[in-house]
Amino acid sequence: MSVLTHAQKSDVDRPTRRPFLSATQQFAAGRSTPRAFFEGCLAEFARRETDVGAFVTFDIAAARAAADASTERWLKGKPASAIDGIPMGIKDIINTADMPTEMGSPLFAGWRSEMDAACVSALRQAGAVILGKTVTTEFAATEPRGTRNPFDLEHTPGGSSSGSAAAVGCGMVSAALGTQVIGSTIRPASFCGCYGFKPSVNALNREGCHDYQSQSCTGVIAASLEDAWQVAYEIVARVGGDAGTPGLAGPAACPAPAAPKRLAFLETAGWSQAQPAAKALMQDCLDRLKDAGIAVTARNDDVKIDAVESNIAGAHPLSNRINSWETRWFLRGARDRDAAKLSKVMQTRLAESEHMTLADYRTALDERARIRAIYAELAGPYDGCITLAATGPAPKGLQSTGNSAFAVPSSLLGIPALTLPLFAIDGLPLGLQVLGFFNEDARAFALAGFLRDHFGGA
Amino acid sequence: MSVLTHAQKSDVDRPTRRPFLSATQQFAAGRSTPRAFFEGCLAEFARRETDVGAFVTFDIAAARAAADASTERWLKGKPASAIDGIPMGIKDIINTADMPTEMGSPLFAGWRSEMDAACVSALRQAGAVILGKTVTTEFAATEPRGTRNPFDLEHTPGGSSSGSAAAVGCGMVSAALGTQVIGSTIRPASFCGCYGFKPSVNALNREGCHDYQSQSCTGVIAASLEDAWQVAYEIVARVGGDAGTPGLAGPAACPAPAAPKRLAFLETAGWSQAQPAAKALMQDCLDRLKDAGIAVTARNDDVKIDAVESNIAGAHPLSNRINSWETRWFLRGARDRDAAKLSKVMQTRLAESEHMTLADYRTALDERARIRAIYAELAGPYDGCITLAATGPAPKGLQSTGNSAFAVPSSLLGIPALTLPLFAIDGLPLGLQVLGFFNEDARAFALAGFLRDHFGGA
Repeated sequence: MSVLTHAQKSDVDRPTRRPFLSATQQFAAGRSTPRAFFEGCLAEFARRETDVGAFVTFDIAAARAAADASTERWLKGKPASAIDGIPMGIKDIINTADMPTEMGSPLFAGWRSEMDAACVSALRQAGAVILGKTVTTEFAATEPRGTRNPFDLEHTPGGSSSGSAAAVGCGMVSAALGTQVIGSTIRPASFCGCYGFKPSVNALNREGCHDYQSQSCTGVIAASLEDAWQVAYEIVARVGGDAGTPGLAGPAACPAPAAPKRLAFLETAGWSQAQPAAKALMQDCLDRLKDAGIAVTARNDDVKIDAVESNIAGAHPLSNRINSWETRWFLRGARDRDAAKLSKVMQTRLAESEHMTLADYRTALDERARIRAIYAELAGPYDGCITLAATGPAPKGLQSTGNSAFAVPSSLLGIPALTLPLFAIDGLPLGLQVLGFFNEDARAFALAGFLRDHFGGA
Repeated sequence: MSVLTHAQKSDVDRPTRRPFLSATQQFAAGRSTPRAFFEGCLAEFARRETDVGAFVTFDIAAARAAADASTERWLKGKPASAIDGIPMGIKDIINTADMPTEMGSPLFAGWRSEMDAACVSALRQAGAVILGKTVTTEFAATEPRGTRNPFDLEHTPGGSSSGSAAAVGCGMVSAALGTQVIGSTIRPASFCGCYGFKPSVNALNREGCHDYQSQSCTGVIAASLEDAWQVAYEIVARVGGDAGTPGLAGPAACPAPAAPKRLAFLETAGWSQAQPAAKALMQDCLDRLKDAGIAVTARNDDVKIDAVESNIAGAHPLSNRINSWETRWFLRGARDRDAAKLSKVMQTRLAESEHMTLADYRTALDERARIRAIYAELAGPYDGCITLAATGPAPKGLQSTGNSAFAVPSSLLGIPALTLPLFAIDGLPLGLQVLGFFNEDARAFALAGFLRDHFGGA
């Protein structure tokens, strides 16, 4: 097993994340400033954005002004939050008052919400420096919009949070907001060598986002595990989770790494589709954990894990059924406005959903609730579950955002998931995924921190 | 007790509701058409809208074309639904593709969502004839926007669904969508002599509406009980409830009236503020129910009712705490865009919410859940609860939308509520309110149907 390295690439081309929290010690000590940090990001943006195409809209002047304002707060010793000054991108299905929200669709070219989404409002309050809106697939579904993987421009960055992952992966920003209803945060974060955090469902306020499906989550793609936690925490501290829910639970700083005693290894539907090299890396990881005295159990050794595996094998089609009903009214509206501006794949999805009834939908919800209860039984015996974040590194080509088989279970289950950039195959990153338990996001971070440290991740 | 009469007014001035479902028998028999029905509404619109001011935006040509299309479907014997052709108004915080959504705020003057909300999409599919967008108070809160009560132009129509209630009350449309997070459907429906239905929380899909607070509901204000049920049913059949929830439960046509055996009378915090004439009407109503052999129990005779009364006494301040947190981010954004265009009352509300923390909000949610559980204990012993819908008829003046003390408990409790236009005081309507149990909306309709028939309501 190898941690992420790119020795075969020249230094100048090697994408490098820019963790923010670790840099703030320099701000506090007066040895650097958010403005200087931002200019580092901007240099990467200037050097690579033409090739990578991570942003739909950006406003350098506004971001620079925000970085200057942050600098003043740090100089006065009064940062607005732990992430005051963090350069960020906002997935372009999330509303912003100062920029259009185009949702990856020509139907919304230039459209303006005129208001920040709740999460964006919170980030601005916390002092975030918002560089721009990051490319999303059409309505955060499957149709790609041209972003390239910074590790190899001929490869997909994944999706639907394509631009968010690409921008964070090469250090144009330290963090970016994504969303996930199938695999839209975990998959691109894995493909672009980022930390990706898909929280427990409802844990981050989604109001003001095109992110309304019942298993959809606003997620964070970040340069470090600590950055990912802090961005999520600062949002929730200011605007909570979805209305009526308690929101992300956990401390004001990233939970300290904690060694697990017992882990479950989940194959998911992805294992049979995974590349041999990816499976070998995962197997090596499991072996090394066992060598370290951690009990790692798989489906053959525990009926409870076996029950989970059997039930999440159909996570993708079940998720599709639920999502189809929930998005049908929106896609009808899009088609009625201008069918020529709706992709073929979305038109097909709409047509396939037309036969659905409310009774079908209710049946699917019941099925999901049943499976969630089966998964919840692992929370007692295990500290968490681990698996691959994707079937392999980002595939070549920009026409597909890749296989989401490993990412979809956490979406269906409504549980926290993290991808850690610990694997690499042929110079392309691949994530190790941690799956936690509902509303125990902090526990998943503690496990992720241990795994990162144990395997020497940065 | 008197049923709604307006003998002291001339016939030409007497506001008259226009029930739709009962008229469709004429369509089916070829004796009338949706177009003819619509022209009747339009005549009332032409005669009274200048005075009443129920609409922000309207499109007569588009509505007439929809009425013609509906007429063709009925003539072919293939109506799109039971409400095909129903003239409706849409509260102006609910998105429409073809008209602006201004939310009662100059900040959104001319703003366009470019898409129908889920409920509007469903209504169009069902064949509804949408006349226009109805006046709402600023962001569906308290600042009135000039609509007058059709029963007396010097009196408020109530709010926040001011235009919806005024338009239905005088027959400009048969039904209109409202919303309620405190008292915004039940109160205006009571003041304007309409049937008002505030469903169980989450029972009608709210996506695409400025209606995102956790105890907010999309509601229906209608000319008849049957119209209210059918509009709600047809929405839910097509787009369900809020994503992830089963949606309104019940039959494809309004539940038949069913005599209750046992009713609870709830005073709520409203009783001590109610007008003596209103209390006398309610007391007469209770006496007549007892005379009919129905057991009517109040707090003094049942500790469970007493526990409910004690706990809903603070429904308004607790609701305000929850709503304040949930709307704070939005009001901040509105203020930051242009503080001069945000009302003083909203600026004050925002200022008061600034001290709130996520911990405060979580405490308030826990308190609400505790009170909901106490109320749920009434579902076994009682068929439902009854009380006034308001402290009296619509007060004089347009500067306030009136007292919401009787309407707020159902919002806090997340339960279905109906107001029935059965009372009148000095020629102004006042509703009898039915409070049901969570996700037992159909049972509340069956009780409401009995009460309407028992008291000779139309």
